[in-house]
Amino acid sequence: MEEKKFDVIIIGGGPAGLSAGINCNSRNKKAAIFENGQLCEKIRKAPHVNNLIGFPMVTGKELSDRLINHAREANLTFVSQTINKIHPGGDTFYIQAGQEFYETKAVIITSGVAVKTDLKGELDFIGKGVSYCATCDGSFYKGKKVAVVSDYEKGEEEAKFLSEIASEVCYIPLYSNVGDLPDRIKVIKDKPQEIIGTGKVEKLILKENDIEVDGIFLERRSIPLVQLIEGLENDGRHIKIDCDMATNIPGVFAAGDCTGEPYQLPKAIGQGATAALSAAQWMDNQNKN
Amino acid sequence: MEEKKFDVIIIGGGPAGLSAGINCNSRNKKAAIFENGQLCEKIRKAPHVNNLIGFPMVTGKELSDRLINHAREANLTFVSQTINKIHPGGDTFYIQAGQEFYETKAVIITSGVAVKTDLKGELDFIGKGVSYCATCDGSFYKGKKVAVVSDYEKGEEEAKFLSEIASEVCYIPLYSNVGDLPDRIKVIKDKPQEIIGTGKVEKLILKENDIEVDGIFLERRSIPLVQLIEGLENDGRHIKIDCDMATNIPGVFAAGDCTGEPYQLPKAIGQGATAALSAAQWMDNQNKN
Repeated sequence: MEEKKFDVIIIGGGPAGLSAGINCNSRNKKAAIFENGQLCEKIRKAPHVNNLIGFPMVTGKELSDRLINHAREANLTFVSQTINKIHPGGDTFYIQAGQEFYETKAVIITSGVAVKTDLKGELDFIGKGVSYCATCDGSFYKGKKVAVVSDYEKGEEEAKFLSEIASEVCYIPLYSNVGDLPDRIKVIKDKPQEIIGTGKVEKLILKENDIEVDGIFLERRSIPLVQLIEGLENDGRHIKIDCDMATNIPGVFAAGDCTGEPYQLPKAIGQGATAALSAAQWMDNQNKN
Repeated sequence: MEEKKFDVIIIGGGPAGLSAGINCNSRNKKAAIFENGQLCEKIRKAPHVNNLIGFPMVTGKELSDRLINHAREANLTFVSQTINKIHPGGDTFYIQAGQEFYETKAVIITSGVAVKTDLKGELDFIGKGVSYCATCDGSFYKGKKVAVVSDYEKGEEEAKFLSEIASEVCYIPLYSNVGDLPDRIKVIKDKPQEIIGTGKVEKLILKENDIEVDGIFLERRSIPLVQLIEGLENDGRHIKIDCDMATNIPGVFAAGDCTGEPYQLPKAIGQGATAALSAAQWMDNQNKN
């Protein structure tokens, strides 16, 4: 049976996340790294990296292989799921990833910064028609019209699921090679521009057309921070942390690019290690009390 | 002629210092690393290091060689001198190392934490008879009695220099194989216990004997932070920094173990890189104004 309980859940498999992982390991904490995509994807694309001491003029590919191999050799669990929501609950966090729930004592967010900008209007309508998880919010749209905008094939599952609840589902894929979908799902090949409405979502403006909808599900590899966990202090793009990598929520830590500029590899590695040690210490203090 | 002007002077050649060095380099800042001892001495002694992502189960020796080789390949100057004092002066810092002066626009302190404890009474008598630099303070002891307590052979030079000024010089070596010293220097093989006096140094208590002195020169590979630069905020053992590695003194940054626990290698490397980028940005802003 798949393991669902951890000491630490790390969200993101870049250098900060992998560094946090091996440092949890060395403190004997059972850690899982959630990454829905390729580990160290951003470094892999760099032709060369020369500012990480010990790795002179290494290629991005070589370096990412080195980091990943080290993490793979360690006693870590890798889970290929997008996390939709972190629910704090007493001394345990419940982590929702699609239809699955995981339990953990501490969370380290190392989700990087999204390169893409949000869709215009998106952040204004979170909870008012904009959702990032069909499993979580699908039931609100019984008999209503919804659109699913998806960066990748995972959106097809979401669209199928919603087509059993909603009266109408439009699927707007932002990628090519869309799989077979039931006829009841209308595939629209167009580019979303803006979400509009008065108090709640009413219309999705596309480049060629507008569609009237009650709800819009956005399927991306990463979701906005404001959506991930309620009350997490941030300035929109970045999570606020102290020098020990603690966020304003006890038991939640963050490291790497998601905590702010400069976006730098050695900084991410150092912060990941610090976050792991802070999380371990926090857990040990909890156990004492 | 030896180069004496730099953009950044880095004090300490451990992982934080070397990481700062190569990152200054990548920002096109001319940097010098001052290290009076062996580079990466502390890691070199570790049997294994396993918490730096990318280096699974590396020995301390292998890892320190990797870090040092990378730094040596970069365009950095290495200076084997103990820095006695940092004098801020407008937009330039004047760095005193023995009888030499160096100029720099920014300083990064990566001096680690001293494993040894201070001599009892030492910190109370700084400026009142306790000194770390014969060149700087020797002239105050004309015709007086001084003791030189030294961790290593460099103290012999200091003792010789002082013997031309003071009426009496006792040399207390804390190492073996002392070189030839002029007869006017009295070598005492004993262990210092405490410095005592009323308002100023009066006596050095040794394990076997006490000696009456007006001044005590302590020759160590690293000197206490409080002595290094006036007004630097610290809590005795650690320098206070913000999350960008800036100290309370504009243009002075710090990274690694000297900034506080946890004393961890990946953290030191990340902080070193961050300090270099912060120093570079600070310099660029100075030039703009």
